[in-house]
Amino acid sequence: MGPVNVGLDIGATKTLGVVVDAEGEILAGVREATEPGSDGVVRTAARVVEALRAATGEPLPGTVGVGIPGLVDHERGVVKHAVNLGLDGDWFELGDLLGDRLGVRVVVENDVNAATLGAVAMSGEDDLVYVSIGTGLAAGLVLEGRLRRGDHGAAGEVGHIPVDPNGVLCECGQRGCLETLASGSALAAAWPSPGQVPPAQALFAAAQGGDPKAIALRDEFAAGVASAVRVLALAVDPRTVVLGGGVAQLGEQLRVAVASALLDQAASSPFLASLDLAGRLRVVPSSYPVAAVGAALLGR
Amino acid sequence: MGPVNVGLDIGATKTLGVVVDAEGEILAGVREATEPGSDGVVRTAARVVEALRAATGEPLPGTVGVGIPGLVDHERGVVKHAVNLGLDGDWFELGDLLGDRLGVRVVVENDVNAATLGAVAMSGEDDLVYVSIGTGLAAGLVLEGRLRRGDHGAAGEVGHIPVDPNGVLCECGQRGCLETLASGSALAAAWPSPGQVPPAQALFAAAQGGDPKAIALRDEFAAGVASAVRVLALAVDPRTVVLGGGVAQLGEQLRVAVASALLDQAASSPFLASLDLAGRLRVVPSSYPVAAVGAALLGR
Repeated sequence: MGPVNVGLDIGATKTLGVVVDAEGEILAGVREATEPGSDGVVRTAARVVEALRAATGEPLPGTVGVGIPGLVDHERGVVKHAVNLGLDGDWFELGDLLGDRLGVRVVVENDVNAATLGAVAMSGEDDLVYVSIGTGLAAGLVLEGRLRRGDHGAAGEVGHIPVDPNGVLCECGQRGCLETLASGSALAAAWPSPGQVPPAQALFAAAQGGDPKAIALRDEFAAGVASAVRVLALAVDPRTVVLGGGVAQLGEQLRVAVASALLDQAASSPFLASLDLAGRLRVVPSSYPVAAVGAALLGR
Repeated sequence: MGPVNVGLDIGATKTLGVVVDAEGEILAGVREATEPGSDGVVRTAARVVEALRAATGEPLPGTVGVGIPGLVDHERGVVKHAVNLGLDGDWFELGDLLGDRLGVRVVVENDVNAATLGAVAMSGEDDLVYVSIGTGLAAGLVLEGRLRRGDHGAAGEVGHIPVDPNGVLCECGQRGCLETLASGSALAAAWPSPGQVPPAQALFAAAQGGDPKAIALRDEFAAGVASAVRVLALAVDPRTVVLGGGVAQLGEQLRVAVASALLDQAASSPFLASLDLAGRLRVVPSSYPVAAVGAALLGR
């Protein structure tokens, strides 16, 4: 086996681990339920790495990259405000603790930033914005090959840009934020889905079936995502925009809906039309572990 | 004289030229009325360089940098859509024509991007967003020392981000754009100023004098600029935000009004408050030729 890298995507319900080769090809992948709390998170991560060692039959001695939600200080390998993981106290020294446990170096990054690096590997484009539509809405930026974290680590926090003074109150305290229009929570509020089907799938299926209310709500949601894409395009003008996050499990139908909303927005504006935002849009294939792959690339 | 650079800021009414030294200090400056049209622009620019040669008593053989409004292809040294300069036809080969005339290499950049480089020299910060509040509203970005132009040259075009679905129609064809709230044109529409005093100065003076309508309009304008700053901060999170452009002739009172609006916006949002946007704000001193200095730095 040539040089490989290990990446982990630690999420609230599951932790995904991959081994990728120098070309970014995925050689092995495992998935475990995440145990909450600081001990639980470290234990889960270690278990996933052990499973990858078993699956590949290799000691995997290189750096392990980790993507995790919350506020991450990449330099120090620490995380906080990862509330869904039960890490809501002081800075948690995930890098050091997991590194000691595994006997390798561990680097830690915010999960959206990790996924953005994964989107670079996936698309072969090194100038892109990754729009993560999960419970919330956030973006990651790789500009001319460089990950942009920002001075306060807030680059890409477009979910909290207000776009309607009469919009609904956001949990951040502002009104009419993009996240209130274009996120999994917004979808769940607009189209509560009682069964096992996620609200996004249920809404898009109902719209596909011709339900007029579902069509209106789907188009409203797509317009919200399109507004987020427009904000990012007019701020940094990336070559490519990649849609990801839980809602992107919708796959191609999400890309089509958002591209159509972008064309609608550009219909009245030759300036906007000249930027061809719809043509820059891609979506992460639902089977592609974008954050885990990006986390693996952190170790390079 | 040590190594120096020449920069020109070609505007619709005047062309400013400076000679700066290796430390960015201004050694000489001249100003001429701009003749419109392609011949006029080249003739004016050449006259300014000759005046700088006369003022310094030096041949100034190095590269001349030019900042000019409109759409600029930096690689080719060409410009178009500089309507106020009478350059509204095909791509105009300003770099080659002026270079032949002067016998030196000429590099051309959009005026807002040039001013952004000037703001770096002025502030000593190499991670900043420059917000140009002139007739319109646009921004320039230098991120970790690199000028961000964007894939279609549209980075920083935040003036055309809509923030109110019920806002007024923008000349770009969209509704409720930031430019309709936070620009010289918006000020002129809200507070027409009959005499020689620019609307911004007239409005701020009336507000200072206690006129309640002026206070309300000033605060609304400041909130618009603050919204543009917030968009940029949540997109790229720069270390510093520098306000410039014609309206920034207001100087410190503009910074104070916008900082106050940023604090108001953050009052309901601990997240926004944690980013301390008001504390990152600076304004270009009214006497500082920020675009000409930035243009000079292009030649390095």
